[in-house]
Amino acid sequence: MKPNCAILAVGTELTSGLSLNTNSAFIAEHLTKMGYECVSLTSVPDDINKIAIAVKWALGGADILIITGGLGPTVDDLTREGLSKALGKDLRFDPQLAKMIEKKFDRICKPMPESALRQANILEGAIPIEPTLGTAPGMIVEVGDKIVFALPGVPREMKKMLKENVVPFLKGKKRSRMIPTRTIKTCGIAEVFLEEKVKDILAKHKDVAVTILAHPEEVHLRLSATGPGAEKKLTTIVGELSTRLGNLIYGFGEDTLESVVGELLLSCGLRMGVAESCTGGLLGNRITNVPGSSRYFLGGIVAYSNEMKQKLLMVPGEILRKQGAVSSEASLAMSNGARRVMDADIGLSITGIAGPTGGTVEKPVGLVFVAISSESKEACKRFVFLDSREMVKFRASQVALNLLRLFLLKELELKGSETPGC
Amino acid sequence: MKPNCAILAVGTELTSGLSLNTNSAFIAEHLTKMGYECVSLTSVPDDINKIAIAVKWALGGADILIITGGLGPTVDDLTREGLSKALGKDLRFDPQLAKMIEKKFDRICKPMPESALRQANILEGAIPIEPTLGTAPGMIVEVGDKIVFALPGVPREMKKMLKENVVPFLKGKKRSRMIPTRTIKTCGIAEVFLEEKVKDILAKHKDVAVTILAHPEEVHLRLSATGPGAEKKLTTIVGELSTRLGNLIYGFGEDTLESVVGELLLSCGLRMGVAESCTGGLLGNRITNVPGSSRYFLGGIVAYSNEMKQKLLMVPGEILRKQGAVSSEASLAMSNGARRVMDADIGLSITGIAGPTGGTVEKPVGLVFVAISSESKEACKRFVFLDSREMVKFRASQVALNLLRLFLLKELELKGSETPGC
Repeated sequence: MKPNCAILAVGTELTSGLSLNTNSAFIAEHLTKMGYECVSLTSVPDDINKIAIAVKWALGGADILIITGGLGPTVDDLTREGLSKALGKDLRFDPQLAKMIEKKFDRICKPMPESALRQANILEGAIPIEPTLGTAPGMIVEVGDKIVFALPGVPREMKKMLKENVVPFLKGKKRSRMIPTRTIKTCGIAEVFLEEKVKDILAKHKDVAVTILAHPEEVHLRLSATGPGAEKKLTTIVGELSTRLGNLIYGFGEDTLESVVGELLLSCGLRMGVAESCTGGLLGNRITNVPGSSRYFLGGIVAYSNEMKQKLLMVPGEILRKQGAVSSEASLAMSNGARRVMDADIGLSITGIAGPTGGTVEKPVGLVFVAISSESKEACKRFVFLDSREMVKFRASQVALNLLRLFLLKELELKGSETPGC
Repeated sequence: MKPNCAILAVGTELTSGLSLNTNSAFIAEHLTKMGYECVSLTSVPDDINKIAIAVKWALGGADILIITGGLGPTVDDLTREGLSKALGKDLRFDPQLAKMIEKKFDRICKPMPESALRQANILEGAIPIEPTLGTAPGMIVEVGDKIVFALPGVPREMKKMLKENVVPFLKGKKRSRMIPTRTIKTCGIAEVFLEEKVKDILAKHKDVAVTILAHPEEVHLRLSATGPGAEKKLTTIVGELSTRLGNLIYGFGEDTLESVVGELLLSCGLRMGVAESCTGGLLGNRITNVPGSSRYFLGGIVAYSNEMKQKLLMVPGEILRKQGAVSSEASLAMSNGARRVMDADIGLSITGIAGPTGGTVEKPVGLVFVAISSESKEACKRFVFLDSREMVKFRASQVALNLLRLFLLKELELKGSETPGC
């Protein structure tokens, strides 16, 4: 049986729906990879009794409990008190922790409010975790054969303590083993057809657990296996799935469409520019989320008005009048314009109607054209996305990146066949 | 005392961190606005026992329980069985529900898998909720004086059932009353200084509950009051806070920085263009997330390379050589360039080092300049953000939008003083 863990997030901002709890999912993903089964993720308000009840409940079903939030200096921060009540352990003032907190305030040059020293209270027998970004210490408390970790709620501090303190502590206790996992990421095929396409392979490998996760315009296959030979089993099934799915697979693990097209551009030695209309800059934003993208991304032109399409991208006025700004002709003129204006090897364009208004019977909200141009080739695709304004924009950027990906794969193939051994 | 509610999300994809649970926060926000206190948000894996234990625990502390997920047709979908076990009520096959499900499959033209009829099993005494998007019915079960709602996990279907079935049902039961709430949104001041600036006002209004929420480069004040005169109390405190905070307040309620600058641009009758470097298109993307932004947003130029800064934005090569691309001079040349190239009234620019590499001692990672130009005025501000690449980009877009906001407010003031009575 796998070791169990529970995660508790403290904060009225979470239970009132003001903030989305991303901490618990982050911790759950980490601990799942380490071989734990997360049996509950709970959020409770800033209330000593509710915290104490949740701590007791969560620990009832798990070996490990990780708490986030409620460790700051203000009167709202009650995790210390809730834990004390649940575990029947007193809080004591730790002069060393107090000194550390005072020092941190010195460094950030602010007069320290008296309340900051509340953070120097620590549970009897607990090991403090020194904060690096803020001033709230975390703590590790062992209770019989169970372990409770309390971490601050600020995501960056929490992540740092999780990686640098919690994980090594748990590894030291040898309570966990890593479960080998592979994620295959596809683009250009719907979930239901992907499942159909590979179901015989999945059925054959009964000892590999599979989750199919649908995201906007991409689908992931997550595979995991346990026991002896787990790594080998995964390598085998990933090989079979790769052969079957071919170019539908854009990457693995932490790959993103934008990171993958970046690598392909580098492999091809090509530099690109974008021309965007309805996406307003989202495509360029995503491409430049990849560190080092300046090696292949020259820039972009967001031609939101027709005027700008003519002026900045040299789209012929006749196309805008006859076929309209949302048309394959305009899209191709935009990708060609971007390429020429920026003197890029490749131009990639998006034009469409993001909504919620502006649609007609022939050109409904959600209609999008994406186009790609190089010196010798061009291609254009048409889509209709039934979704909100922001999701139409996001989906459009997805299909544009995928069009670029497939184009570059073909370039690499040609290059390979022209120069054998390359 | 407020009526209590608890929210339970079922799904191993949530407890393993594969998917972020946005459903629970959505429901919590809705119920909080209706006057409920959410005492716990819990997620459990697809496991009958764990679901049953969590249902019992959650109902122990709350009058209302809303469950999402686990109502589909597959063998993983175990919410029905978990509920049956927790509440000691049998599941029965409902022929009418079965007919409805069959009809839905007819309509979507797919051969219905046998498993789909599992969804026709309903808890003894429960009221089914007909699905509109998928085929999984929801249900309402009254247990003594408590009520359990089970809704599908697909967000769109869940939201629809929540609004069209759960809310009216609860209103019919008169268990809730709307709690009047106001949110004041500020930009340009840190949380700790904001609190300092208004603490006497907050202290004076003891019967108004206040939450201060810090977001990247903005801080929100959320105020709520109950009892007779609640609306009036809120109007009074909002008035006092508005006088004290002045232009630090960018908006209220659902306002965003991008929607507010949009309204200001329309009020001023001005059209803008952007010039982006390190943000890669994020600024234009955010501005165009506002429906109707084509009325004031002409377009943008993402000049990622120095070459493009010279070619597309006419930034003098001398500035790039002497002061560098990340400098106030370059930033101002970019905003002026954007304005002139697009023939816009206002040019707004961002240049910086998003990291994680590329920093030096004089120009560290996170260094950002934002600048604004009109025909007669220009301004530039310098920032250093200690954050990840994506957050440096986001913060840069925040301060750029705020620079634009303050600039437009001054324009409006001048306009007002020039033309009295306007």
